[in-house]
Amino acid sequence: MFESAELGHRIDKETFRAEVPKLREALLDAQFDLREQGKFPVVILVSGVDGAGKGETINVLCEWMDPRFLSTRAFSAPSDEERERPAMWRFWRTLPPKGRIGIFSGSWYSDPIAGRIAGDLTKGSLDQRLDEINRFEAMLANEGALVLKFWFHLSRDGQKRRLDALEKDPRTAWRVTRESRARLKTYGKLQEAARHVLRVTNTPWAPWIVVEGTDDRYRSLTVGKVILDALQKRLADTRDQNYPVAPPIAPKGDSLDVLTALNLSLRLDRKMYETQLARWQGRLASLARHPKFGGRSLILAFEGFDAAGKGGGIRRVTAALDARQYQVVPVAAPTEEERAQPYLWRFWRHVPRNGRVAIFDRTWYGRVLVERVEGLCSEADWLRAYAEINDFEHELAGNGAILVKFWLHISDEEQLKRFRERENVAFKRFKITGEDWRNREKRGAYHAAVCDMVDRTSTGEAPWTLVEADDKCHARVKILRTICERLERALASDNPKKKRD
Amino acid sequence: MFESAELGHRIDKETFRAEVPKLREALLDAQFDLREQGKFPVVILVSGVDGAGKGETINVLCEWMDPRFLSTRAFSAPSDEERERPAMWRFWRTLPPKGRIGIFSGSWYSDPIAGRIAGDLTKGSLDQRLDEINRFEAMLANEGALVLKFWFHLSRDGQKRRLDALEKDPRTAWRVTRESRARLKTYGKLQEAARHVLRVTNTPWAPWIVVEGTDDRYRSLTVGKVILDALQKRLADTRDQNYPVAPPIAPKGDSLDVLTALNLSLRLDRKMYETQLARWQGRLASLARHPKFGGRSLILAFEGFDAAGKGGGIRRVTAALDARQYQVVPVAAPTEEERAQPYLWRFWRHVPRNGRVAIFDRTWYGRVLVERVEGLCSEADWLRAYAEINDFEHELAGNGAILVKFWLHISDEEQLKRFRERENVAFKRFKITGEDWRNREKRGAYHAAVCDMVDRTSTGEAPWTLVEADDKCHARVKILRTICERLERALASDNPKKKRD
Repeated sequence: MFESAELGHRIDKETFRAEVPKLREALLDAQFDLREQGKFPVVILVSGVDGAGKGETINVLCEWMDPRFLSTRAFSAPSDEERERPAMWRFWRTLPPKGRIGIFSGSWYSDPIAGRIAGDLTKGSLDQRLDEINRFEAMLANEGALVLKFWFHLSRDGQKRRLDALEKDPRTAWRVTRESRARLKTYGKLQEAARHVLRVTNTPWAPWIVVEGTDDRYRSLTVGKVILDALQKRLADTRDQNYPVAPPIAPKGDSLDVLTALNLSLRLDRKMYETQLARWQGRLASLARHPKFGGRSLILAFEGFDAAGKGGGIRRVTAALDARQYQVVPVAAPTEEERAQPYLWRFWRHVPRNGRVAIFDRTWYGRVLVERVEGLCSEADWLRAYAEINDFEHELAGNGAILVKFWLHISDEEQLKRFRERENVAFKRFKITGEDWRNREKRGAYHAAVCDMVDRTSTGEAPWTLVEADDKCHARVKILRTICERLERALASDNPKKKRD
Repeated sequence: MFESAELGHRIDKETFRAEVPKLREALLDAQFDLREQGKFPVVILVSGVDGAGKGETINVLCEWMDPRFLSTRAFSAPSDEERERPAMWRFWRTLPPKGRIGIFSGSWYSDPIAGRIAGDLTKGSLDQRLDEINRFEAMLANEGALVLKFWFHLSRDGQKRRLDALEKDPRTAWRVTRESRARLKTYGKLQEAARHVLRVTNTPWAPWIVVEGTDDRYRSLTVGKVILDALQKRLADTRDQNYPVAPPIAPKGDSLDVLTALNLSLRLDRKMYETQLARWQGRLASLARHPKFGGRSLILAFEGFDAAGKGGGIRRVTAALDARQYQVVPVAAPTEEERAQPYLWRFWRHVPRNGRVAIFDRTWYGRVLVERVEGLCSEADWLRAYAEINDFEHELAGNGAILVKFWLHISDEEQLKRFRERENVAFKRFKITGEDWRNREKRGAYHAAVCDMVDRTSTGEAPWTLVEADDKCHARVKILRTICERLERALASDNPKKKRD
């Protein structure tokens, strides 16, 4: 969920100065059209970590847009009027009407998250609240509202640094209260709660937009651009509004993302590789034979660009396993039988029993990768797929499966080199087709799809591992090590069946 | 939820014999088209009370339709294959492909309901499961499946009678097991659990269809007709299938419904009326001043045909209250300000504080009554409104509000009499307009809408009270008595705040 927001996004002063005037003008135009159309309201939620710039961002938005048609609502302790009514009453009171924008600072999420951190809410009660929230937001979307939910994120160090910086400056020191400091201590708890809340409420009709809060300029520009983009898309949308799916939203303020942030120059020399490979394969072999593994199962998901080395990676894994214990599932285009079923059906078929390993060579993520990029399914289909996939993996994990998901990443140049090599080596020629070359041309679109996928489906129970795969040796060892570490951690937990989230 | 299924629906032999051949032919035709189109699967869930004829109905369906393209799945204790995989795996395995019909006897609802009755599941865990089910069914609907969920209902006596009858007949005695008898004892618990489960999972994309199970012929014919109706509507539907709303479904096998079942000849003579009125008004006056009422609020909802006596009923209630304590909210067409908000917004405005009474003269049910009948909103809008209204009332009840909802019912003749009277009496003339006459013509459509409304929104926490209103005296006393009884029960509970469901 927070992968993209821990990369240290920054925007320099010049870029910022150059971009802001255009953005402001476009925002004012869009706001004018919104008012003129008068067809839908815009609900903007601003939530997140303390010190990540929630307040500043709201101030910036108010400065950039026409404040006459923009209202900001801040919610703290409820008034006596509010306490004597259902919890949602205060929010209903302040919903923006059609044609207007309402910014909510502190929203229907604040209470449930705070309650969970304080331990007042059980997981079950939290989920009940979240279900109510999902139904409420679905109602808003069905009624036509454009719902934008921002989560401002800071890494643990980032939060500490922000608070220190704020405190040093006499103009902002007042912002840092004793409570802010106290919250540093509950950082881990907040992250855990937030990860769960964001996963469950990341609906197709009101998805979260996670923004890194470290750099003021990046944060403001990103939020402004996302709002503008969503507004413009929605204003231009002439579809039946009984079709509540939010426009695809990717915060993009600079060229930094989870993929570009990878260090593809990582290498492992041949000798080291042999030693490490033997070591981790041995470890995996004994873990897979551990008595406790009899109560769990292991699901490995391999995704990556063509020629990224999925096959080679998988072979190094299976070499450590008993052939009766694992199944490799190569995923190609669905069969006729599979096309007659919901798209997840063909993966459910291969869910392993306890004590077994299922290795997917390409996976259920095809829907948000190839099917999205190639237009093989509608936008609504792949947008709802993120939540459906998370639900699927939640069920697997809830039943004790250990899910390890790999994205094998190679550079454009390395891919080209490997393609050429394949064409020139007889026994590798079968591996390369015209389609592979065509896919290369769409690299940009695939790149964006992968970033969205990682952001929306890397969950606490099934995180993505991004593998730098320009060097095969490094990649294979990282794959094996990751599997072993995840297995070890899972088997070390007392309760063989993982508790339901 | 179960109102319509406790009326003693029956169909006589002749009608049944006359209707079945036509129905079978039409079902086979529809099944053929379904196969030819090959565009969507049909998932039919058969659940409900023991002895309500689940098995028999499935047999009848298999007899009536083409069994080659119909599969029945019965689920009891999971196999070892199944136990070692997520709970939903067994259902995924057996989903019907596009063009086919799958009948599920025992479904993803069986376990949660059984767990709740046995006390293994807390309310929170149950709601988590139900949320997962809702997401699963939403996925099915989004993938194009037509999901029909039948709940076979029997009143407590009905269940006992059915079991006795089955036991007496040697050909069916084997059906009655010790478990069936044991379940008679848990009838109340099952009803409570079922009411909750049905409310929460009554989604616009997969609504429940409650069928009375007492009479074999009624049950079979009703189920057959509902399936046929849904199939035909869906086969003819050329809309974008990213628009998952189930067709409106009303089981209708005979002329009996919650409204026709009312005894409109109930009368109260003038003298009795005076005594009773004074008695219940006095009771209400003291209840409204009870110290415990300071922690609750009272919301009265009045609906009814034109001239059914809503105003008169309300005046008899307010006569017992302190003017500072209550507010009467007459609901007419929404104002411009209200039209710029989600439709429930204008009712949230009037949610009362603790210790106060809000009386709605017409209510949020306008959406599923006048707006549905007059086509003022889309079908999708009013179909989703049932769940939204239930959510709304759940929030109110969760906060301690006592909700009492009245449908004042008058016969066609009585309404005509009152209309004429109004035209002839000077001080009543303002009460009658051309619109009232026009509404009369749509009585049939309103009648159906009221039945659907009662079935879908009469919940444990906010049940409907149907008032026989041909006699004003009887109606007024019944209204006052109902309010007093609900208030007394609520205030008698130890905990002033009603626990969340």
